[in-house]
Parts: sequence; C-alpha cells; structure tokens
Amino acid sequence: MQMKDIIEKKRDGGMLTREEIDFFVEGYTDGNIPDYQASALLMAVFFQGLNKEETFYLTDAMKRSGDVAYLSDIPGIKVDKHSTGGVGDKTTLVVAPICASAGVPVAKMSGRGLGFTGGTVDKMESIPGFRTSLESNEFKKAVEEAGMCVIGQSAHIAAADKKLYALRDVTATVDNIGLITSSIMSKKLASGSDAIVLDVKCGSGAFMKDLEAAETLAEWMVEIGKLAGKKMAAFITDMEQPLGLGVGNSIEVQEAIETLKGKGPEDITELSVKLAGYMIYAGEGAASYEEGVEKAKSAVESGAALEQFRKFVKAQAGDPAIADDYGLFPQAEFVLPLISEKDGYVTALSAETVGKASQLSGAGRARKEDDVDLAAGIILKKKVGDSVKAGESLAEVFANDRSKGEAALKLLKEAFIIGEERPEKRQVIYKVID
Amino acid sequence: MQMKDIIEKKRDGGMLTREEIDFFVEGYTDGNIPDYQASALLMAVFFQGLNKEETFYLTDAMKRSGDVAYLSDIPGIKVDKHSTGGVGDKTTLVVAPICASAGVPVAKMSGRGLGFTGGTVDKMESIPGFRTSLESNEFKKAVEEAGMCVIGQSAHIAAADKKLYALRDVTATVDNIGLITSSIMSKKLASGSDAIVLDVKCGSGAFMKDLEAAETLAEWMVEIGKLAGKKMAAFITDMEQPLGLGVGNSIEVQEAIETLKGKGPEDITELSVKLAGYMIYAGEGAASYEEGVEKAKSAVESGAALEQFRKFVKAQAGDPAIADDYGLFPQAEFVLPLISEKDGYVTALSAETVGKASQLSGAGRARKEDDVDLAAGIILKKKVGDSVKAGESLAEVFANDRSKGEAALKLLKEAFIIGEERPEKRQVIYKVID
Repeated sequence: MQMKDIIEKKRDGGMLTREEIDFFVEGYTDGNIPDYQASALLMAVFFQGLNKEETFYLTDAMKRSGDVAYLSDIPGIKVDKHSTGGVGDKTTLVVAPICASAGVPVAKMSGRGLGFTGGTVDKMESIPGFRTSLESNEFKKAVEEAGMCVIGQSAHIAAADKKLYALRDVTATVDNIGLITSSIMSKKLASGSDAIVLDVKCGSGAFMKDLEAAETLAEWMVEIGKLAGKKMAAFITDMEQPLGLGVGNSIEVQEAIETLKGKGPEDITELSVKLAGYMIYAGEGAASYEEGVEKAKSAVESGAALEQFRKFVKAQAGDPAIADDYGLFPQAEFVLPLISEKDGYVTALSAETVGKASQLSGAGRARKEDDVDLAAGIILKKKVGDSVKAGESLAEVFANDRSKGEAALKLLKEAFIIGEERPEKRQVIYKVID
Repeated sequence: MQMKDIIEKKRDGGMLTREEIDFFVEGYTDGNIPDYQASALLMAVFFQGLNKEETFYLTDAMKRSGDVAYLSDIPGIKVDKHSTGGVGDKTTLVVAPICASAGVPVAKMSGRGLGFTGGTVDKMESIPGFRTSLESNEFKKAVEEAGMCVIGQSAHIAAADKKLYALRDVTATVDNIGLITSSIMSKKLASGSDAIVLDVKCGSGAFMKDLEAAETLAEWMVEIGKLAGKKMAAFITDMEQPLGLGVGNSIEVQEAIETLKGKGPEDITELSVKLAGYMIYAGEGAASYEEGVEKAKSAVESGAALEQFRKFVKAQAGDPAIADDYGLFPQAEFVLPLISEKDGYVTALSAETVGKASQLSGAGRARKEDDVDLAAGIILKKKVGDSVKAGESLAEVFANDRSKGEAALKLLKEAFIIGEERPEKRQVIYKVID
C-alpha cells in the first residue's frame, strides 16, 4: 500500500477502505508517513469529504493510536458526558453527582485545555487537597466509593488526533465535518464509557456558530458513536450568552455546588437536570428520559446529589467542607465591578467576549504551558432579558493581578448590549438528537 | 503575510496575488515554509486551479528562485526549442545546426533527465572528446564560432521548481495545467532565449496522452511565454510511435547526422525542417514561417547544416570526424534482432513500450545516480504502415550486457502489433499554435 495512491484515490472522490485509513493513521502516528503527505490527504478530504463509514474508520483508528481506558472492571453501565466547549460550562460537576446518586456511575477523564477558563480538571483543583492524578486502582476505588471520579486525561489519548489536529491547524484543513467528528469522537471512545451524552454548544461562544452546523455535527457524532457500539445522544444547547453566571475555575465550582443545593441559576439548573436525566436513562437507572429527569430533580431536592458531591471530593482527597464554606476556595485579591451607564434591558451578552475577558483576567490559558489563576474570572449579575438601571452592577471581575483585571473589565464592557425593549429570554436546549 | 491564509484563500477559490505567490515561492525555496503547507496549497490548487495570471506569477517566481542565464552578450535573437519529451526525439541535434547555418544562434542548456534514453547532453557525450560543461566565456565563444552551443543545464536552475516537483510527485498533485505549465516554463524562461518554439508531444510515449490535453498545455505555455515577453510558438506532434528509427544515445546522434545529410527517416526530416523553419522565422532569419522552412530545406540540401554541425562539435572539443565515420562512436557488444513471426502490416508501434525497452537495454536512467550506456538502444526497422514478412527483422536491440539486451528484446516484442490490413501512415505534426 502506498500513501500516494491513497491521496490520489481520495482526490478523485473515491471511498477509502478501513485498511487504507488504518495504514494512514498508523503510519502517520509512528512517523513513517510524512506531514506533507498527510496534509495533502487532509486537503483532498476537505474537498471530497469523508462519508460516515470512512469517518467511523478514521475515528476508530485514531482511538487505537493512543491509550485506551478499560472501564469493564467497574460494575454498571458507565455513562460519559462531553461538551464541545463553551463559556461558564460547569455542568459536569453538577450532572456527575446527580447520576452517581441515582446509581449510574460516571468515570470521567477530562482535559485541561486552552481557552476561556481551565478545563474541568483545573476547576476541581481549586478544591484544597483535590487530586486529579490517580493510579488505575485508586480510580476504580473512587468510583466504587463515590459512584464517580474525575481525573486528568492521559497525554497519550488518541495520539494520532493530537498530531493531525496540529497539522490541520496550520494547513487550513480544520473545517470538515468528518475530520471534526473523528477528532472529538476518537477521544471520547478512548475514554471507555458505555454510553455518551453530548452537549453540542451553539452560538458566539462555541466552535459551532449556527444551529444548522451544530445539528449536523451532533448527528454525525451520534451516528459514529452508535457505529462504535455506544449508546448515544446529543443535546444542542445555547452558547450565545454564557451558561449560568460564573465564569472561571473556583467560581464555577461554587456555582455548581449552589446548583446541587437547588439554588443555581435557572439555565444551568435546567440543562444539568435534563442532561443528567438522559444519562440516568442511558445508564438504565430510569425507564425513560422523562423518568430520568424526574429522578435527577429529586436527587437535587432531597440533597442526595450534594451528599454525593461531598463523597466524590473526599474520595479524591479534597476537603468536603468546601461545599459549605466557600471561604476555603482560593480568593482573588481584586474585585472590579462593571457598572451600567444607562437604564434598559440586556439585549445581548456575547459569550465569546465574556470568555475572552475571563481569559484576560487570568482564568484561562493562552498557551499550553501557562498556569491558570484558580480564583480569577467573572461573575455576571445580569443576563439577556434582565432589566438594569444606570449605576447598577452588570458583572464583577475577579483577579489577582490588577492590570489583568482591568484589561478583562475593559473587554467585558463590550460583551453587554443594553437596549430599550425587553428581549425574549434565551432558550437553553434547542434539540435532543438520539 | 501568513502561509495558512494563502492556503485558505486558494482553498476557498480566491485568486492569489503576485505578492502572495512570491511569498510562497521564496519561503518554500529557502525552507521557511514547510513541505506540509506547500503540499496543502498544491492540493488546493489541484481543486481550485490557477488562472493564467497566477500561473505567470508562479512561473516567474520559480524562474527567479535559481540561476538565470543572461544571453544578452551574445548578438542576435537567440531562439530555443523545447520538447516536452518523447521516444527517439533527436530533433535538437538537427534543428540547431540548421538554424545556426541560417544565421540564427541557438544557445541551449539541456538536462540529462530520467527516462527512456539519456538527455541531449548525454547523447552529445557519445561523441569522443565532446564537452558539455563550459565556463560562460567558453559558452559565448562557442556560440560565436559555431552559431550554436549545447551545454548541461545548471543544477540550480528554477530551484523552487525542483523542490516543488519532487513534492508534487509524492502528494498526487502533478496533474494540474497551471502547475505543469509553470514547471516547464520557469526552466525555459531561466535559460534566457528571446524566442521559444515548443514541441508538445502527444500519444502513448508522451506525458500528454491525448490531443486535447496537449493542445491545452501548448496554449497555456505559449500564453505564459508571451506574458514574459518572449516570442512563442508550439507544435503539437505525434508520439504514439517513436520519432525516427533510432532510440538511444549514440544511435540517435547518428540518425541526426543522417538527417542533416538528407538521408534521415521521413518523420524526423519533416519535423526538423518545420521546427527549424519556425525558429529561423522567430529569429528574424526569414520573413515568414514558410520562407523559414524553405531556408531550412536548402540548408540541408546544400550541406551547410552538416558543415555547421561539424563546427559545433569541434567548438566543444569533440571529434568532427564522427560525422563521416560512425565507427568512432562507442559500439555495443551485442545486437539482438526482433524477428516477425508473421506476414502483415505494422498497425501499431507503442512509443511507450519501445521507450521502456530502450531503458532496459541500458540507454536510459531509472534513478538519477545511474549511468547511461551510450551505445545501448534500439533501431527500428519497421514503423506503422510498413509491410512485414515472417522471418524479417522488425528491430534490433543494442546492448553491452546480454541479460539487459534480452530483457529489452522481450519487452520490445510487445510494442509491435502486426495486422492484416495496411493502416494509414501516422501524421507527424497535428497543429502549430502561435
């Protein structure tokens, strides 16, 4: 088999076989196929596309190119949730304890990632003592004790995807549905859960800017996951404005705890309960999605989910007292308010701009080697549809470095549009595909 | 300027500016732009194409990426002839002396090349003493003395093209009219002549297999050459069967001399006289193409062209006696005849198969570092339209290694198709584009 023939076949609109895709992924991962042939193939794929069969083969080959987690030792149907990424998305920390309290184990590997805030692993590390790096026997024990566990993702997960993504980024070959789907799904399949509920974000703060593109991606991911033998569903949810009110690391953990106490913002509460409801159903803890949602609501109302959260923190060596005393979280030195200059209604609140402001405050990484400031970030006081008076606070920036905080505040101002007419409240969930 | 943006622009169907193309060619030549970005751009070009303006910019940038010959010191309008490559093509050795004898100087740089036989430079080296590597003052002196000179092409001509061609070859991005045109024309423009007559070969033994493709290439090359300020013409000529009867190195030089003596095969005689006629016209040695052809015919009939050939050989330190004593050429140890098994007519004679047989005999290079056997090759006894009897010789293979000769003979047999009905003789020149 020759790489040149594979490029030519795709260039001319042919369908690649499983053997050809394996040959490419294996050869590229071990360095036998050079970057220049890979990028030529990627550009041919950009023009000729991959069908769902080819996308499944690519996903599966990339999954096998790195470490694969085997969760079969852990009893029960393991359910994973994956968000395509947004601003203020702390749902994992709400849905996992809810599912665990309903008897559905969640064994989650999360990344740190670049972007607006740290990843779930960074957020958890704002809890004093919390360990995100566990040996596999410790991981198993934590799931048994707490019904859930969140650890850092192996650096060697889907090795081919890491290499290919870096190449796509510099050769203008990112934007192809088959390539995007396989990149996300190869990592998800490598994490080893039996069922996966996807949260596909849509809007200014997300990778997918419009509903149509988000729907297509959701359909492809669901189909590829099913071809891999997984139980699949995808929620398409709003990311035109941030989710909830808090954006940052410890700030988001606190909001997750508030939500588990039943006192969280409306949107994050609605989304968490519904995602968890589907996960409970997928994990056979309920006979239907609707029943799952009811169970999820009860778990919050009864305090069982919060109790499960405490167990989870304790099982990973964190201090469970943080659930009751937020003073135990790292505190920011500066709090800078954003004051409204006029009366009116918030008609738009750009998730993307809030996210960038959060990054400027120190909460997110610009480069892989950067540290995140666990206390930095933003707390919104107003969201789309809220009324506001001149002099009232729209948001607060938290920072440990005044100049960073001021830069964040300056940008944050641009995120808000204040108009005279009250707009509709934004929908949280647009669609569920399963 | 960012290479990624240039790739993206072409990917999305945009037209690249002169600055963008220069940025790419300069950056790629000096190694600042990596292969993987170049190959992504090439694949985008494969799908989106280059228009003639972009092709001219690319040609010009690639020309400037290496050595450029300045022939302005040499008086007169310098005319070059370039063949896209075929089997048995020894026209350069016939047309250059004809033009020189008509007062039109030909200062030619030729390659060695891979393929069925050596390049023109290899062929000339079959003349004892002949030097193809001259200093620039020697080159100039040879043109002044003999009206013509043939030397080896600089290894640094169109450096970007050399690097890009190697990349295209392994990334399935060879087959694009803009890229093919710029690759050929960048080298032609770097050789510095004022007028260029192209011989675009068409048929099984040529790069362009069909007439339509050859016409398109010819039109593009003529237009790009004109945009560069050159006088241009392109002949589209047959390469379904070999040109003339001899295929090899010294074998072809001998046939060229025979043609200069007025005793060459019909097809090579017709093509040489017409190409030379156009070159004389382009070099302002005649008022029209027709008058040029008449002058070319006279130069052969009068013996002036043969005399010019002797001067040319002498000016480059070769032994001019070879024009009269072919025994001075290197001789092959083995001559193996191909005998016809039946009566009939040659209905087809595959130029490609004859060429491959010639290479097997030792006359051509498979790899750049191979030597060519100057005495090896093939002499055809029959061509399309000729009648043949069982037991008669169809061709002879010349070799210095018996096993190579036998391998060539075995393949050569497949080149001939003997049928019962006499076919039409093949046309030599299909079209002249100027």
